[in-house]
Amino acid sequence: MIRDSNLEELVSKFQEKDRLALARIITIVENEPERGKEIFDALYKNTGKAYIVGITGSPGSGKSTLISRLAQEMRSRGKTVGIISIDPSSPFSGGAFLGDRVRMREIVSDPEIFIRSVASRGMSGGLSKATYDIATVFDAYGKDYIIIETVGAGQAEVDVIKIADTIVCVFMPGAGDSIQAQKAGIIEIGDILVVNKADLNGDKLALQLEMALDSYTRQTGWRPPVLTTIAIDGVGIKELLEAIEEHRKHIELAGLLEERRRDHIERKIKEIVESLIQEHVYKQLNEDKGIEKLVEKVYSREENLYSAADKLLKPIIKKFVG
Amino acid sequence: MIRDSNLEELVSKFQEKDRLALARIITIVENEPERGKEIFDALYKNTGKAYIVGITGSPGSGKSTLISRLAQEMRSRGKTVGIISIDPSSPFSGGAFLGDRVRMREIVSDPEIFIRSVASRGMSGGLSKATYDIATVFDAYGKDYIIIETVGAGQAEVDVIKIADTIVCVFMPGAGDSIQAQKAGIIEIGDILVVNKADLNGDKLALQLEMALDSYTRQTGWRPPVLTTIAIDGVGIKELLEAIEEHRKHIELAGLLEERRRDHIERKIKEIVESLIQEHVYKQLNEDKGIEKLVEKVYSREENLYSAADKLLKPIIKKFVG
Repeated sequence: MIRDSNLEELVSKFQEKDRLALARIITIVENEPERGKEIFDALYKNTGKAYIVGITGSPGSGKSTLISRLAQEMRSRGKTVGIISIDPSSPFSGGAFLGDRVRMREIVSDPEIFIRSVASRGMSGGLSKATYDIATVFDAYGKDYIIIETVGAGQAEVDVIKIADTIVCVFMPGAGDSIQAQKAGIIEIGDILVVNKADLNGDKLALQLEMALDSYTRQTGWRPPVLTTIAIDGVGIKELLEAIEEHRKHIELAGLLEERRRDHIERKIKEIVESLIQEHVYKQLNEDKGIEKLVEKVYSREENLYSAADKLLKPIIKKFVG
Repeated sequence: MIRDSNLEELVSKFQEKDRLALARIITIVENEPERGKEIFDALYKNTGKAYIVGITGSPGSGKSTLISRLAQEMRSRGKTVGIISIDPSSPFSGGAFLGDRVRMREIVSDPEIFIRSVASRGMSGGLSKATYDIATVFDAYGKDYIIIETVGAGQAEVDVIKIADTIVCVFMPGAGDSIQAQKAGIIEIGDILVVNKADLNGDKLALQLEMALDSYTRQTGWRPPVLTTIAIDGVGIKELLEAIEEHRKHIELAGLLEERRRDHIERKIKEIVESLIQEHVYKQLNEDKGIEKLVEKVYSREENLYSAADKLLKPIIKKFVG
């Protein structure tokens, strides 16, 4: 099935859980669409087993520390973990201060925890595609948990995080944080809310979040719990993983996990088809000499933009709506 | 040519410079694509005469006051003005404090100054389309100048402002403003830089901007002048309009105005065609029952996203790349 023999060897190494092969395959998937497709053809059948946890929070909320603690907790239960960081300021992405990175060393050195950071592609589409692709590779590799770290703000963020089965929103005590949360629509998407650095007057924020939650009605019958943690001391991490497992049970029993993943697949397929078509259209438009004549006509006011666009469009549309 | 007789009457009123007709037509163009097209068919031939000035600057830079003063200066030279505000915090958009709006009253009451604010459509495409459409209507109405007010930040902003013939970037003295300017790429797009509120230590900022300009080489042979104004007292406004007229002369003589407008027309046509095609694709995707089967296959791992997307795409592509 794989034409490229090197690729075939790489894939079999990958299936023998070779970390280097994992790293190589992610790089290929990120940078070589064509070979990436071959890899997906070979690996995709082994996916769908990993559980994806999205963890979002503003820089400074300490979510990276929270994530490393959470990953360690998962490991202590014999589970393997893949981490995808989309926060450029995160120590996982090489950002942040040395102190943070030192703290990370412990988990970075664990062979069963694989960390990959995704450079923002600018466009949200590219970002969510890269995240999805890497998550799929982690899944095929056999990771039990995949943790996605994002900065919780903006539509791009929300698009990315939608691939998660459980979404954890991290807050820290600090002026207006809870209001920001509602603005950013964070609360609507959060399945679990965490107040980290809870030692800094976290109860007040926790209360604000509970109150904010009261004003949202949810169809799913799940009221997001508000947890308090002090990640740097490992306080509340066990409880967080338990909350994640509870949410997982809830959506599995309610059939919401299936639904969530089906919806996501449908969105993704449409996303891909649209971007591919746009590529084609763009190519055609740039080859089409007709456009230059039309520009002249619009410039000289023989045509207006919309009539010109119609003239350019009609033949294309005819072709493809038949 | 216009089928709709009410529309025909509206257009003839518009051509008799009826302000109410102008307002109605803008509303139609903004909200009714089909009738909007008829209007463009009728009006577009009368466009291309107005000179478009884009004025961009962060909220608080005082650009709204600057714009009203500038509009008054244009009026004092017997010119008519249309203002399009895309800054939700602008008094033109009904934002800002009462004080500002009181200050605006003077120009709002001038029958030869027409103000329209565009609500952000979220997507940059919608925003620049609406702005273009309204500018075209102002142009057809016979406005000598069209001023577009935007908050100078982000790609959406830059797309919108590109329709302007002369771009004025407004800064105010304040920490890091000049650095922000370079970050936002504001300086690359500015034809004229204005330090407003210059009484607040504006010379320092002006110097910073001059230095920033030194690090950009331009092909056009135009070095953006850095002006200082105190808009609220009308200081430096006359000089600003003269700088605008000088830039206008420069780009007219150098043939850059034509070029700029041709490029803009081409970009716009492509924009429209792309969005129309996307609509069609979207429609087809949502009607296409095939997608549900594919989602099932991907969910059950018979297919992966990319092979599924290919299956959906191939027939469409075949049709329209022939």
